[in-house]
Amino acid sequence: MIGQSGIAVKHIIRADSASVAALANYGVATVHEAMGRVGLLDAYMRPIYPGAAVCGTAVTIFAHPGDNWMLHAAAEMLEAGDVAVLGTSSDNTDGMFGDLLATSFRARGAVGLVIDAGCRDTAVLRDMGFPVWSKAVHAKGTVKATVGSVNTPIICAGALVHPGDVVVADDDGVVIVPKLHAAKVAAAAAAREAKEEGTRKRLGSGELGLDLYGMREPLAKAGLKYFEDEAALQRELRS
Amino acid sequence: MIGQSGIAVKHIIRADSASVAALANYGVATVHEAMGRVGLLDAYMRPIYPGAAVCGTAVTIFAHPGDNWMLHAAAEMLEAGDVAVLGTSSDNTDGMFGDLLATSFRARGAVGLVIDAGCRDTAVLRDMGFPVWSKAVHAKGTVKATVGSVNTPIICAGALVHPGDVVVADDDGVVIVPKLHAAKVAAAAAAREAKEEGTRKRLGSGELGLDLYGMREPLAKAGLKYFEDEAALQRELRS
Amino acid sequence: MIGQSGIAVKHIIRADSASVAALANYGVATVHEAMGRVGLLDAYMRPIYPGAAVCGTAVTIFAHPGDNWMLHAAAEMLEAGDVAVLGTSSDNTDGMFGDLLATSFRARGAVGLVIDAGCRDTAVLRDMGFPVWSKAVHAKGTVKATVGSVNTPIICAGALVHPGDVVVADDDGVVIVPKLHAAKVAAAAAAREAKEEGTRKRLGSGELGLDLYGMREPLAKAGLKYFEDEAALQRELRS
Amino acid sequence: MIGQSGIAVKHIIRADSASVAALANYGVATVHEAMGRVGLLDAYMRPIYPGAAVCGTAVTIFAHPGDNWMLHAAAEMLEAGDVAVLGTSSDNTDGMFGDLLATSFRARGAVGLVIDAGCRDTAVLRDMGFPVWSKAVHAKGTVKATVGSVNTPIICAGALVHPGDVVVADDDGVVIVPKLHAAKVAAAAAAREAKEEGTRKRLGSGELGLDLYGMREPLAKAGLKYFEDEAALQRELRS
Amino acid sequence: MIGQSGIAVKHIIRADSASVAALANYGVATVHEAMGRVGLLDAYMRPIYPGAAVCGTAVTIFAHPGDNWMLHAAAEMLEAGDVAVLGTSSDNTDGMFGDLLATSFRARGAVGLVIDAGCRDTAVLRDMGFPVWSKAVHAKGTVKATVGSVNTPIICAGALVHPGDVVVADDDGVVIVPKLHAAKVAAAAAAREAKEEGTRKRLGSGELGLDLYGMREPLAKAGLKYFEDEAALQRELRS
Amino acid sequence: MIGQSGIAVKHIIRADSASVAALANYGVATVHEAMGRVGLLDAYMRPIYPGAAVCGTAVTIFAHPGDNWMLHAAAEMLEAGDVAVLGTSSDNTDGMFGDLLATSFRARGAVGLVIDAGCRDTAVLRDMGFPVWSKAVHAKGTVKATVGSVNTPIICAGALVHPGDVVVADDDGVVIVPKLHAAKVAAAAAAREAKEEGTRKRLGSGELGLDLYGMREPLAKAGLKYFEDEAALQRELRS
Repeated sequence: MIGQSGIAVKHIIRADSASVAALANYGVATVHEAMGRVGLLDAYMRPIYPGAAVCGTAVTIFAHPGDNWMLHAAAEMLEAGDVAVLGTSSDNTDGMFGDLLATSFRARGAVGLVIDAGCRDTAVLRDMGFPVWSKAVHAKGTVKATVGSVNTPIICAGALVHPGDVVVADDDGVVIVPKLHAAKVAAAAAAREAKEEGTRKRLGSGELGLDLYGMREPLAKAGLKYFEDEAALQRELRS
Repeated sequence: MIGQSGIAVKHIIRADSASVAALANYGVATVHEAMGRVGLLDAYMRPIYPGAAVCGTAVTIFAHPGDNWMLHAAAEMLEAGDVAVLGTSSDNTDGMFGDLLATSFRARGAVGLVIDAGCRDTAVLRDMGFPVWSKAVHAKGTVKATVGSVNTPIICAGALVHPGDVVVADDDGVVIVPKLHAAKVAAAAAAREAKEEGTRKRLGSGELGLDLYGMREPLAKAGLKYFEDEAALQRELRS
Repeated sequence: MIGQSGIAVKHIIRADSASVAALANYGVATVHEAMGRVGLLDAYMRPIYPGAAVCGTAVTIFAHPGDNWMLHAAAEMLEAGDVAVLGTSSDNTDGMFGDLLATSFRARGAVGLVIDAGCRDTAVLRDMGFPVWSKAVHAKGTVKATVGSVNTPIICAGALVHPGDVVVADDDGVVIVPKLHAAKVAAAAAAREAKEEGTRKRLGSGELGLDLYGMREPLAKAGLKYFEDEAALQRELRS
Repeated sequence: MIGQSGIAVKHIIRADSASVAALANYGVATVHEAMGRVGLLDAYMRPIYPGAAVCGTAVTIFAHPGDNWMLHAAAEMLEAGDVAVLGTSSDNTDGMFGDLLATSFRARGAVGLVIDAGCRDTAVLRDMGFPVWSKAVHAKGTVKATVGSVNTPIICAGALVHPGDVVVADDDGVVIVPKLHAAKVAAAAAAREAKEEGTRKRLGSGELGLDLYGMREPLAKAGLKYFEDEAALQRELRS
Repeated sequence: MIGQSGIAVKHIIRADSASVAALANYGVATVHEAMGRVGLLDAYMRPIYPGAAVCGTAVTIFAHPGDNWMLHAAAEMLEAGDVAVLGTSSDNTDGMFGDLLATSFRARGAVGLVIDAGCRDTAVLRDMGFPVWSKAVHAKGTVKATVGSVNTPIICAGALVHPGDVVVADDDGVVIVPKLHAAKVAAAAAAREAKEEGTRKRLGSGELGLDLYGMREPLAKAGLKYFEDEAALQRELRS
Repeated sequence: MIGQSGIAVKHIIRADSASVAALANYGVATVHEAMGRVGLLDAYMRPIYPGAAVCGTAVTIFAHPGDNWMLHAAAEMLEAGDVAVLGTSSDNTDGMFGDLLATSFRARGAVGLVIDAGCRDTAVLRDMGFPVWSKAVHAKGTVKATVGSVNTPIICAGALVHPGDVVVADDDGVVIVPKLHAAKVAAAAAAREAKEEGTRKRLGSGELGLDLYGMREPLAKAGLKYFEDEAALQRELRS
């Protein structure tokens, strides 16, 4: 069951590295659209500094409020290119992660952290260039008393994350791409970006989306009425 | 009625350009005070990057949760110097606006966006220097299925906005100046700023506001008692 | 009683300057840990610009919602190295503090502000380099009608603050060190930092916290079971 | 301008009593739909006891945080059948209204209160049967120091309210009917309710909305695909 | 993928009726504990009236903000004893469900609704005795424009729900029991309740949990020190 | 220091029973006013059922997020008429308290609980008539792993509470009366209530607070201007 404690899985199957490399070319919004508008974490997950961006494979952590023990257990499972993703058994903003763990995670090859709880030492993390997306920034210390799990499926900020899934994160937030769909989503993102390039040019030249996307007729059918000005509108409302 | 859907007004009366130019010299706090302490949007409206600042005329948009169709319809009404202002029929944080719409809006002359919903592609918008004030940053995509309105009065983050009103926004948030009062408010802001200059110098030299503003007597009348130190206070409390 | 209005204490006993100077070397997280994991303000208190950091002695202010009168009264009590700390009688996000008060506070020697309410003129404050930690950024103006207190014990964002206590604040938030414990806490912070230096090196070389902290046996005792891979876990769950 | 202080209008034009009486027959949801899905206050406005329900004409109050002076000024303008509606200049949860003011309001003929701030003495108000919709229940006392306004247009919990508008409130929240539209909205509500009666019967007999509303074809066009069971879905996804 | 739109599965495998009947004997807290402390929805999910309680099998609905179309599509799949459970693609508080849908759902055999969005007509629902757990009560109407899904896995208020899972809900909130584990969880709940009966009696007679659970030694080991009184504590702190 | 863990004080000095008995006659709002408008807990603290009311002496508990061990340790210190008051080291909504602990607390003589965290088994607690004021209702279970303290000063929902202080709680929330001031506050509450009785009668007869409190002149001085009607106001604004 999701949220079961006491399990640590050592070796996981990660999304193929070609797909991860491909997905690294796109922003969170593009990947989310390419998946069919799914996979986002809740809007409260924010980067600890502007410009943070990462794409990697998930090592998942399930932890309890006020307890960061499992982050230490997870360090052992981290490989080059991994992003640790932590969900909790209940609402918590404690600073479970700081510069010591970041030093350890980086030494193991990890490239970032997504944590549905708090983060601290954020000035140092910014200087290190170790990106973190968190629910809060808070210095609150934690204990190491209760076991959770490592590399089991978790729910993090409203999203289901399996070990090995692709994590794409930037200023807009975080999106999870299931490992089985990574190649397909990367292709769809590429196609979307290619198409958007042309659209961007036409919009940049002043062409309207109304015309470019053919929206005028659907808008009229859906009931949008145009009025020359406020006076015309008032005449209609009074009639 | 506020919130009526299905209306798009093509030509609106904007605040006079001299007043808009004048108001551009002042920050949100100064303009808010010059209006008699009114006109602010709620505190949850934040710029998507620090240092964002804009002053322009409002093209208003009324949209429904999860639906950004009206932003496309509004693009057609935008003119040089406009700021799009979007209110919704209910609470929503979806990313209704991103870099494609920003490209379109900029091509039409718009200089910013105020949106009581979410914004995405924020890294690109920051690089473009296209300022947005929003309720949330979220990559969540939206549909184009339900019509709202363009250029009708709206409520955005607790403030009433009419088409053509002046929008002043900076790091402190957003204030709306009704177009009819724009000239008067610009003059009051100038007067306030002039007066504050002298005050700033005196305060900067170490003079106290207590003396400068003549507050000592009113404070005493209102019941403030001074004690030399903690010991004196304790003696009083025991007596 | 906490929250009593009408009292202004002129001279307070501040934490000794050597301890304040010593504490200035450490971040909020380190000081909080050195105190035994206490003293933090709530997580909603955020700096108005990244990189803000301060260490000083508290001049406390008790104010009422929408009323910044006491900030003016407090200016008189500020000395070099002080940090003003403001608590309110109820929830409020009004912009009680702006650039004029910052100019005044700085002229009196103050080095920062911690305010459980709103702050405005934040772009100017950032340019001035006057750090503020607040609950909100909002331009909302305030009145000067109701007296509170200066230099009495207050509760600010969930923490008890006495006049003269040490205030340490950075990107992670704010921690209060009672003046009587300042020297002891500074020493504990130094010890902690010294110890962490060695830990950081070992973690940076790839050594695991599991080994460094001797966590393997406690984790096993607490019930953590390791599985080679997902397949091994599934076998166990089915058995 | 919305939010101007210092104005008290003695006599206002109220919605006609027949329309008010007619609207009293319908719930908030029905009235909101009959208006074209507009006019609701934000979802955080809740009744202080279950079963509270009222329909009356608005006497509007604009007040400042922590200050309930204007409620006393408003008492004088209340007539039989009025509902006081209070908006504030900023976020506040103080208990501006309690049993004494309720006694006074009732003596003047008022039948309820809608307040975008706090309420107290709620046990007594429940016993009195004086319904209040508020943002918070809190005992926090307030001052009488700063003037606001009575009977000017206000924004209350995201809705624009003019003096004399109809206020309909029940367990679902609060809706405002502009006085000019009251008769039309009452008629539309009656029509809606009549139509719903038949719908209710058919749905109650087990008929599906899909058939009753003719949704099957639109759903198919919009892309909904039916699968006999999970196995059929899996076959499709794999193909 | 979780959150895919456009799918409606007609026939699902439900938890066995004996397990459902057994689980109906226990409260949410007991079932949550019996599962190993997992399965709860977030704390913001509240019943629309006190005393609401239900136990049934989940028909899942995935819907978009401001759009209740899928509730109609789901009605067709409801059978006796089902509880509809709705998750959304983003944050929304609109009143997607009211008395007409409740009439339809009940006619189909459904015994309740869990909705991560808003609910309306709550007074009528209370009178009908149709229990709903929701994120908000709000009268806001919705459109029928965008398809979601019925009977696919969803995330609702932070919990993963599969079609056919058991939903147990009461005044404490909502817990989901995966259908495969239903029998085992029901047995564990029975065992827990049996054991608690004895504990309750002993605690009711004044026996301390400290003794009953043997906590004195572990507390001492974990560092809890007892002091006769405040004076003894002060002596220790000073020594 | 506030928030120190590892301390349990067995015997405390409680407010004198006569004062507690006297304070039991008044509501939270009255007691708060009688104290000079201080002592309230934050507005988010709500009773788990309507009509809950209690007055007793505080046994304080300091606990960590997700850990209810200290509630068991506190049970031993409870005496007849006590109200347990729990503060935490950080934000938490877990259900630390349920019917078993309530049975134990009641057996020891306790008459209620105030908990800055979650509560569960609320239906049973309501049936037992054991009143609880909490930050949340949630079934989430907790561990017993980390020691906090019993009968040390705590901060609970923004208020400072010492062991033995008087806790008054009702539908309006919770107020803490320091034990040293209990007699004085009880007397002030009695005086206030006596005075309000006369006021209530006069207001109930239709007399205006404006006249009764002599507010007309102060309002005029503070700048309130009266207008006969909307037309008169418009004339003034245009002049």
